[in-house]
Amino acid sequence: MPRSVPTHRGSGRLPDAMSQLPNQPTEPPVPTSADVARLAGVSRATVSYVLNNNASVRISETTRRRVREAATELGYVPHAAARSLRAGHTRMVLLPTVNFPTDPLHHRFFHELESGLRRLDYTVVQYGSTGLDSDDAPRAWAELRPVAVIAPGTIDLTPHGISVLRRSGAKAVITLGPRPVPGAHALVMDQREVGGCAVGHLLESGRRRIGVVMPEECGLAPFAEPRLTGARQAARLHGARVEPLPLRYDEESAARLATRWRTLDLDAVFAYNDEYAMLLMRALQDAGIDVPRETAVVGADDLMLGRLLRPRLSTVRMELATAQPLADLVDRLVRDPGGAPEHHDLLRVGVVRRQSG
Amino acid sequence: MPRSVPTHRGSGRLPDAMSQLPNQPTEPPVPTSADVARLAGVSRATVSYVLNNNASVRISETTRRRVREAATELGYVPHAAARSLRAGHTRMVLLPTVNFPTDPLHHRFFHELESGLRRLDYTVVQYGSTGLDSDDAPRAWAELRPVAVIAPGTIDLTPHGISVLRRSGAKAVITLGPRPVPGAHALVMDQREVGGCAVGHLLESGRRRIGVVMPEECGLAPFAEPRLTGARQAARLHGARVEPLPLRYDEESAARLATRWRTLDLDAVFAYNDEYAMLLMRALQDAGIDVPRETAVVGADDLMLGRLLRPRLSTVRMELATAQPLADLVDRLVRDPGGAPEHHDLLRVGVVRRQSG
Repeated sequence: MPRSVPTHRGSGRLPDAMSQLPNQPTEPPVPTSADVARLAGVSRATVSYVLNNNASVRISETTRRRVREAATELGYVPHAAARSLRAGHTRMVLLPTVNFPTDPLHHRFFHELESGLRRLDYTVVQYGSTGLDSDDAPRAWAELRPVAVIAPGTIDLTPHGISVLRRSGAKAVITLGPRPVPGAHALVMDQREVGGCAVGHLLESGRRRIGVVMPEECGLAPFAEPRLTGARQAARLHGARVEPLPLRYDEESAARLATRWRTLDLDAVFAYNDEYAMLLMRALQDAGIDVPRETAVVGADDLMLGRLLRPRLSTVRMELATAQPLADLVDRLVRDPGGAPEHHDLLRVGVVRRQSG
Repeated sequence: MPRSVPTHRGSGRLPDAMSQLPNQPTEPPVPTSADVARLAGVSRATVSYVLNNNASVRISETTRRRVREAATELGYVPHAAARSLRAGHTRMVLLPTVNFPTDPLHHRFFHELESGLRRLDYTVVQYGSTGLDSDDAPRAWAELRPVAVIAPGTIDLTPHGISVLRRSGAKAVITLGPRPVPGAHALVMDQREVGGCAVGHLLESGRRRIGVVMPEECGLAPFAEPRLTGARQAARLHGARVEPLPLRYDEESAARLATRWRTLDLDAVFAYNDEYAMLLMRALQDAGIDVPRETAVVGADDLMLGRLLRPRLSTVRMELATAQPLADLVDRLVRDPGGAPEHHDLLRVGVVRRQSG
């Protein structure tokens, strides 16, 4: 079907082609930037400059207002993919969604990072990886042609996966997790520090026979394993014993562990996090074991619930680097993609000493 | 720069144009489906049929394997936007990310919905709305040209916002939250039922002076307000009194409320959820108020922590509809966009009676 507006044709035709998808029978045609240009009486280039806030071109405030009013009147919205093509690169950054409910710490971090990237004019989308393996996930991400991918620690990125992403146009492939991956940039949250901090504190209080709770829930191993490693490294310096304690997050599993507690001959336990600590502490108390006299208990995450328990729960508090400098970092890696992989450590830990150990 | 492969030209040139973004100096050119076709010795149409799992075209297993091997060798990944254009519609569904840490219930629900949509060959992306208002959010979503949007209850979609989305090509605009929005489909989680269920239970146990905790944390009002409404509706039938109790999620705020508890003359409290219930119950106990003799306490969410408290916490348990039928529903609304707005109720509630009330 021939179009009546010549500016729709020629080299700029991709954006309009992209937006001419079939419409609902009840809706008018999808408005294009050419429609906005016609209504405002300006060129399409001017429409693009105004709506993309391009400050490098001088356009009067009157014209800018006319373009914005025309866009509003027509209900025109720029097309992210088309804008990317004009700009010569996409502006989409993929963030991971995690496979288990997010704690407040990571939740706040991701929201700050998202806001920071949006301020830099990136489009941030989150993409889940449930049911995707190390091969599927990079392919699924690559189909969206992101300019940067921040991959979760729960997906083991391979050199092949990184190559798939880079060859699809990703300027920056960044992992976020306990360990760097060769060939990718890394925002490292070294979980060993959490275990090391908890056990270091218990050693200082004179404990030498230390259990470390290992959650059996799937998806937590990438966090639990390095915490155990960190606990062992700290214990070794003092000749202390570390005993891994598999535990499911249910009362039955906790009661079973509490029943055989005295045969384990432990004087302290690092309970993975505050929620497992609450579960285990209740089971220990129900089994008549005195916390902290017989067994000290330390959690992690510094959740509110730890302050509400009796005895009040000692815990490892974690802080993540502020997100705006990381958004700037992502932007720099996108603009200058040739450099060597960079590693940045995000995690700061410290003990909050209360009554439980 | 002229290209050496004639099939790159003509009407099919959009996909290649989209993928010819500048590359890192260290990376080879982005492979195109034409490169795959050449290496496999087949047409580009065949490449497209094989890689998009189009079962309606008969292609031998040998050819399919050759195409897949060529794609793997070259590191070729289909371009979601280009595939959408060929298919005549996009396959992207936008899901919301919420502004506060997700509870296990919603977390599981969204992951199941995402998997269900992915099985139907949709690309699911999550898009945060922090810092976006009722006007900004639909515009930001529309830039991605999704075929369906599931909008969170925390964004008040206006008729204008819905129109922006539909005119950008969205076949289905679906809200997910406490209330339907005129002009959009709705997956309703009617929070009034939660308040009604909690208070109905307290009335049955003979309580008549019932406090309802109203969290002061921002973002919770869309849940707390209808819970209060449901509580009031249930209480009215029995001539019972309902007293809203503003509470911040910190120990100081809870202690202040507990100090003036006896002046409020309440014999029960519905504490919004289990976490606020734990906070308030601890403060009441520290202030010497007997739970449940003086004051019954009921939470909501049926979290593990409620079972670990003493007295064990009574709670409202929520269940959401299974997600696969909802994925099918989204697919149907996309395929048949002309129908009247549909409302589906997702929430089922019931009381879990323990010791606290």
